[in-house]
Amino acid sequence: MARQGWKVESSQMAKNTHNPIRHIVESLNLQPNPDKHMIALSIGDPTVFGNLKTSDVVTEAVIESLKCGKYNGYTASTGYQEAKEAVANYTSNGDYKVSPQDVILCSGCSCALDLCISAIADPGQNILIPRPGFPIYKTLAEGLGIKVKQYNLDPTRAWEVDLNHMKSLIDENTAAIVVNNPSNPCGSVFSERHLRDIVQIASSYYVPIIADEIYEHLVFKGHKYISMASLSSDVPILSCSGLTKRFLVPGWRMGWIIVNDRDEILKEVKQGLLKLSQRIIGGNTIVQGAIPKILSETPQEFYQSTIDIIERQAKIAYSLISEINGLKPIMPQGAMYMMVKIDMTKFPRFKGGMDFVKKMVEEESVFCLPGESFQFAGYMRIVLTVPEEQIIEACARMSEFCSRYYKSKEECPPPCIRSFNKQPPMVIPLNNKNTVCKSA
Amino acid sequence: MARQGWKVESSQMAKNTHNPIRHIVESLNLQPNPDKHMIALSIGDPTVFGNLKTSDVVTEAVIESLKCGKYNGYTASTGYQEAKEAVANYTSNGDYKVSPQDVILCSGCSCALDLCISAIADPGQNILIPRPGFPIYKTLAEGLGIKVKQYNLDPTRAWEVDLNHMKSLIDENTAAIVVNNPSNPCGSVFSERHLRDIVQIASSYYVPIIADEIYEHLVFKGHKYISMASLSSDVPILSCSGLTKRFLVPGWRMGWIIVNDRDEILKEVKQGLLKLSQRIIGGNTIVQGAIPKILSETPQEFYQSTIDIIERQAKIAYSLISEINGLKPIMPQGAMYMMVKIDMTKFPRFKGGMDFVKKMVEEESVFCLPGESFQFAGYMRIVLTVPEEQIIEACARMSEFCSRYYKSKEECPPPCIRSFNKQPPMVIPLNNKNTVCKSA
Repeated sequence: MARQGWKVESSQMAKNTHNPIRHIVESLNLQPNPDKHMIALSIGDPTVFGNLKTSDVVTEAVIESLKCGKYNGYTASTGYQEAKEAVANYTSNGDYKVSPQDVILCSGCSCALDLCISAIADPGQNILIPRPGFPIYKTLAEGLGIKVKQYNLDPTRAWEVDLNHMKSLIDENTAAIVVNNPSNPCGSVFSERHLRDIVQIASSYYVPIIADEIYEHLVFKGHKYISMASLSSDVPILSCSGLTKRFLVPGWRMGWIIVNDRDEILKEVKQGLLKLSQRIIGGNTIVQGAIPKILSETPQEFYQSTIDIIERQAKIAYSLISEINGLKPIMPQGAMYMMVKIDMTKFPRFKGGMDFVKKMVEEESVFCLPGESFQFAGYMRIVLTVPEEQIIEACARMSEFCSRYYKSKEECPPPCIRSFNKQPPMVIPLNNKNTVCKSA
Repeated sequence: MARQGWKVESSQMAKNTHNPIRHIVESLNLQPNPDKHMIALSIGDPTVFGNLKTSDVVTEAVIESLKCGKYNGYTASTGYQEAKEAVANYTSNGDYKVSPQDVILCSGCSCALDLCISAIADPGQNILIPRPGFPIYKTLAEGLGIKVKQYNLDPTRAWEVDLNHMKSLIDENTAAIVVNNPSNPCGSVFSERHLRDIVQIASSYYVPIIADEIYEHLVFKGHKYISMASLSSDVPILSCSGLTKRFLVPGWRMGWIIVNDRDEILKEVKQGLLKLSQRIIGGNTIVQGAIPKILSETPQEFYQSTIDIIERQAKIAYSLISEINGLKPIMPQGAMYMMVKIDMTKFPRFKGGMDFVKKMVEEESVFCLPGESFQFAGYMRIVLTVPEEQIIEACARMSEFCSRYYKSKEECPPPCIRSFNKQPPMVIPLNNKNTVCKSA
């Protein structure tokens, strides 16, 4: 049985862990036009362009935490008590009260989601995730041998959940339903009525909810952010959030889980979360030490200013892209993104949305993530945190690009159909039945 | 098949994840003597007593990183290039050269170990770990369904590995050998000769090494820290370290893996590490931004001062405990700990080391972690980073306590044997055969 030489394989967990965005971006092998500066409407990091900075209060709070020297040591794997109290106060709202012992601080919201999925589902079980949706849920679950089932969001109804489709996916192996609100990539913000409908499904099928609310409070005028947990009386909800988006510090890796479980249905899962949190022992303590000040003293104007900038840019991009033949933007209600439908029948030159996006980089140096990154072909996602002048410039270039390749119904000759038929099979989203050339 | 009510179990991974130290401490249900202030010789956090502080250079480096505002965003899941370059330079030594692309920054050394074990071993496989040893390896592996096999360290030979025992444990399912040098809990520092012997075993059985070197450079006068990877020509070694111990900032969660694999034996495992690092997206970026300055500008005097303090306290504790009848300290060579053998035959009143440790808390308010925490009964671990006056006071109280309960061979009456026989079965370490009452 002795080994005769070196042969070391990676684990199945490593083999099964995939980051689809990285895979897609690499496979596109992007070559921007060297004569035009690159505008990356693809990067979901609000800090990268320099126009959105965290509040000075936030920075000062961490400097104080550092200088006092009290926050360099180990703390409980779920975090400092004062930090957990601060998160509980910050999240409590009206009748919805969070207790500090239900808060678990994590190394970023990804880690929070990782712990939730790891604690609640076994290999062979499944979790329901949104489509289109951010791929982290799939990456985390599949690495652990947990299956994902994707419920449809409906672009014609402001990306609300197709409730019947969600119900149809639940089976005896469904360990949790992941709900992402506000949504990446859709920028949608669910109404109270819609959230109640989702909770009602979870209640009637006895399935817990994992609520990814990392974009909480980032909602535009006329919309309201409501935490799922504040609406549930019986359904246990693991709410995940953190400093990342609202405070514009994604690299700090400070996230949290709130275990909402008044009937102790998740008693064992909560124990599991506490045990799993000991594997890597929580998030950075200097940031933890600053959390009480960050959450209580960051001025309202800072929050509002971020939203105002994003909303303004959403309106500009929506208005400019609405003018482009062949593209159809869907106005977001919050978060930092906008989805744009590409009517591929009008661009017969391209073999689908991936090819469209790739050529737009090659010719215009404008990069949007293709919908395939979110399991939703025929769309692309635009990041709204890019500075205004770059968004305007990018929209102008997109317009140029589209007008070069746009073929109206009348112009669409038989070859376009042949060309269209040659493209590889792609997932056609629901409510997107008009993607074949009408003249065919 | 529809569920009829709420019933949610935790995952197997959660069920299989255990922290033995927490379990043991909880089961002891410690009640300190209210008339004596507690001296916790149990806490492996060098910052907790206030006598060991990080360097001002380290704090300043993080403040600069924060204030410049450049390090708030996401970075690659393996870390900033400049930070990886700094770690590569810091670790390279003479002919041993580390390349930045072989560095993966992690959320603490626990996360580094988690990634290594997760990437290299599958459920059903096993890894070899030291006994006595820090329980994190067992916690991490067993949570994933990976078995651990414990190779003996020999207290009579400065805690060197029992090489024949190590060899005897390797089978076709052995995915890696974990070597912890300098050691927690032993405080041992392996010689070059001994490290070469271990590498030779790994080489002849074709098993990769995971080197937990979080206590690197923390060695006392007359001893030398040698990284395992610098000695290997063929064996691939995943070296894990971080800022935690040497820089006295355990809460910052800044660790790293160095993939030492010149023959690309771990090519697939390295890919796996990169993929798994995307699950939680690396360590805190403000600390990452400070790493170049921290690793290049922290003054030598800071490092030396920490070692001098720990060594001085090791000598004091060693000298004082050596005088206590029934206890036998083993002088450490580095790290922050000392193991002390409890000759249980001389303390017939107690049902083993756990009972001994518990009673010492109840009567003297001095707490040492029992050897059971490290899978090594009959010993206790003393933390050497406690301030000198507390160590002296603790040793005096230990002396009091032991003299109260010590029974010499002559005094040891037959009831002691009966009492001894009543105790539950416990793991008797190798080379510790004298723990039965000689008069029996």
